[in-house]
Amino acid sequence: MKQVPVGISARHIHLSPEHIGLLFGPGYELKQLKPLSQPGQFAAEEQVAIAGPKGQFDKVRILGPARGKTQIEISRTDAFHLGVNPPVRESGNIAGTPGLKVIGPAGEIELQEGVIVAARHIHFHTDDAAKWGIKDKQRLRVRLSGERPLVFEDVIARVSDQYALDMHIDTDEGNAAGVKTGDTAEILD
Amino acid sequence: MKQVPVGISARHIHLSPEHIGLLFGPGYELKQLKPLSQPGQFAAEEQVAIAGPKGQFDKVRILGPARGKTQIEISRTDAFHLGVNPPVRESGNIAGTPGLKVIGPAGEIELQEGVIVAARHIHFHTDDAAKWGIKDKQRLRVRLSGERPLVFEDVIARVSDQYALDMHIDTDEGNAAGVKTGDTAEILD
Repeated sequence: MKQVPVGISARHIHLSPEHIGLLFGPGYELKQLKPLSQPGQFAAEEQVAIAGPKGQFDKVRILGPARGKTQIEISRTDAFHLGVNPPVRESGNIAGTPGLKVIGPAGEIELQEGVIVAARHIHFHTDDAAKWGIKDKQRLRVRLSGERPLVFEDVIARVSDQYALDMHIDTDEGNAAGVKTGDTAEILD
Repeated sequence: MKQVPVGISARHIHLSPEHIGLLFGPGYELKQLKPLSQPGQFAAEEQVAIAGPKGQFDKVRILGPARGKTQIEISRTDAFHLGVNPPVRESGNIAGTPGLKVIGPAGEIELQEGVIVAARHIHFHTDDAAKWGIKDKQRLRVRLSGERPLVFEDVIARVSDQYALDMHIDTDEGNAAGVKTGDTAEILD
């Protein structure tokens, strides 16, 4: 059995150093609230508001550390509330995606692009992937045996010696399956 | 190929005749806005607000005609927003479920039970079921080949000569699969 812990990603934002300065003030550094499953990644103490044509969310968690480009990851449900229509994309692939207004304590940004619905994926440490014969970018079928059992197809394998074993899905996917963070998924092939 | 149209159910409420009177005034009759896929069922012009310990939705569609017992069907995402924890249940099975406050133009109700997350199901006309060898209450596996392909397990078959062929899932499930009302599902077994 190839078993993988599940992590459910609520809406969140990754900020560039420039945007951290615009939203929180020049030279501002994010403070770590708690570490995430992937080594070096953390939930920051800071939150921002994000606003679209139809709605707004006031407390959106920032994930650190700062990245090259600002990226907002939301669920399709969130997208309807905000009034934007982001594509399902892998993290980092934001060309041609919609933007949103981002509001911090020291300023606002009219983001021109960077809003995605994150494509479900599994992080594998190189050792886990080797043990199970899984290659980077392979598409997997994965069963979540929660209250409402679902088989996810086209789950993207992401392999690196910088990763820890974890399946990342969004809140729509977690709710549709009736699972929560820390539950276990099974890779079928 | 056993193909079935998909209908995505947004949050909605079915009201008893007594509760229609309390919310809209004595003797009030729901007005039909548009028919639903199941014969005789309709979306009403009227809406109500529903409120829980943590949040509220102001425009919740009433589905008619009136039923014996009031029932509110919401997604798990909605449940977190409202601050209630309803079980996944088949329609009509509301014993021991939580309630919500329901607010209409003429009055309010403190519903003691009736809030569920509807279990995904397929309505089959008796003829469709016979053609495909499907029995009432059978559990099916069903693929939705949307932007984010998913196989739903434990999909409940409901067979009646009063039904029209339609698969009913909620907004979390629809969003997780990247499908919309009118898309097509395939029964795998």
